[in-house]
Amino acid sequence: MQDQLSQTFSALADPTRRAMLARLSTGEANVSDLARPFLGEMSLPAITKHLQVLEKAGLITKTRKAQWRSCKINGDGLKDAADWMEQYRIFWEESFDRLDAYLKTVTANPSEGNKNDSDQ
Amino acid sequence: MQDQLSQTFSALADPTRRAMLARLSTGEANVSDLARPFLGEMSLPAITKHLQVLEKAGLITKTRKAQWRSCKINGDGLKDAADWMEQYRIFWEESFDRLDAYLKTVTANPSEGNKNDSDQ
Repeated sequence: MQDQLSQTFSALADPTRRAMLARLSTGEANVSDLARPFLGEMSLPAITKHLQVLEKAGLITKTRKAQWRSCKINGDGLKDAADWMEQYRIFWEESFDRLDAYLKTVTANPSEGNKNDSDQ
Repeated sequence: MQDQLSQTFSALADPTRRAMLARLSTGEANVSDLARPFLGEMSLPAITKHLQVLEKAGLITKTRKAQWRSCKINGDGLKDAADWMEQYRIFWEESFDRLDAYLKTVTANPSEGNKNDSDQ
């Protein structure tokens, strides 16, 4: 039995499921609309399975509307994963700061970046 | 063969690997130090395997320092996943106005909503 955070990250570890979330980020959609772009490359049961993984991970919710089932993103499901990420922000900002500092030295002193050229 | 983003999320989908990253967030550590808290519950090969998954996903880097191998977090590896998450921030923030504004831009620019499709 996976913990909640592992289940969320596991659900996100697939390009089809991320594409489904991207589609849902533009608005609610029913299962047929969500399935359509993938029908050429996978079976309907495979698509349904992907939707179940997203639902079980709490990333989407399904509601019954008249004849069909509508899916939408459940922001709360993503929040815990985003909060977890946030703790590590300092590590990618650090590497960005280093790159930024380096680019500033190169821009301030264009010859620096190409100093090897003069050797040739 | 998994795409890079799937590999990152997949590596994060495990509590042992997240605990290893949490340990590394306090500073570099060698493999023995990283392994110690887990030796009661799993074998050394299992621990090594977890470290390999983190390294393959670009979340940690190993460097050789004198006699031992030191591990540290690679912020760049986390950044892409955090950037991906960031697009969905609006769904967990409780501002319907912003969601409404976002939906309007997507309606005006339908291609925007599918920008993640390039992952595939």
